[in-house]
Amino acid sequence: MKMSEGVEWGLHCCLALAWLGDDTAVPTATLASAFDVPPHYLNKFLQALVRADILASSAGVKGGFRLAKRPEKITLLDVVTAIEGPEASFRCTEIRRRGAGVTARPSEFAMPCGIAIAMGRADAAWRRELAAQTVADLVKAAPPAGAERMRCWYAPRAR
Amino acid sequence: MKMSEGVEWGLHCCLALAWLGDDTAVPTATLASAFDVPPHYLNKFLQALVRADILASSAGVKGGFRLAKRPEKITLLDVVTAIEGPEASFRCTEIRRRGAGVTARPSEFAMPCGIAIAMGRADAAWRRELAAQTVADLVKAAPPAGAERMRCWYAPRAR
Ligand code: FES
Ligand code: FES
Repeated sequence: MKMSEGVEWGLHCCLALAWLGDDTAVPTATLASAFDVPPHYLNKFLQALVRADILASSAGVKGGFRLAKRPEKITLLDVVTAIEGPEASFRCTEIRRRGAGVTARPSEFAMPCGIAIAMGRADAAWRRELAAQTVADLVKAAPPAGAERMRCWYAPRAR
Repeated sequence: MKMSEGVEWGLHCCLALAWLGDDTAVPTATLASAFDVPPHYLNKFLQALVRADILASSAGVKGGFRLAKRPEKITLLDVVTAIEGPEASFRCTEIRRRGAGVTARPSEFAMPCGIAIAMGRADAAWRRELAAQTVADLVKAAPPAGAERMRCWYAPRAR
């Protein structure tokens, strides 16, 4: 079970855009070169973040991406869900009803399967932890020297 | 991000083998028909559970699978790790060092990336929750009627 690399890319883009602030739009090509990743592939993830209302994009010579809201309003769960989709990593296919289960009384399946409930608890704990952390927390956790260096790197490349 | 269906299958097999107890070995074909899944594909997951010392397998006419230890000693994390591998779902590829990062002072990267730490917190919460639940808990949570029906179904098909 592995997340797409888009999660690492997307979170780093959000952090970079949080550093740059509201009045700077950064084109895909600049973000791609900041992290040395393929622009076309990165753009797919940036568009997913726009659809999830995490990033705003503008077209034209001054166009590019910026955060669509304040960094404290964007949780890590928002970003992960935008890129990985909303489904839980464990999906119950109701195998208990198949095979030996086909002759069972339907009442036996009135409650969700205990295995699905148990796996759901772990998924909920994971989501809770992601929802408790925001892009603003990433800004706070980053070394100031790194933030400063990145801001200087972006300055001549942003719009 | 999606787990293999082997996790649902493997957990249900462990639950069934816990119901049957130590002195009953169940062949792959019987487990596969209990859940109506392809025997060859199921066997792959059963072998992974054997390698992780969760199941014990025996060969011959009386051969099959049984739990390798008591149900209270097998956590859901053990089963998930045996089937999905030990890696976290988020893997940091250190993109911070690439692109704009190549000219940074190495000291900037002395600490792990804050994004990797934040994602690691969620992974740890997920693992903690899985490690806190055992196959014995699944036994307790299952409806008694279901357990009884399954035991009767296995009786003529086990060894
Ligand atoms: S039937 Fe899906 S987890 Fe039990
Ligand atoms: S460099 Fe990998 S998460 Fe930041």
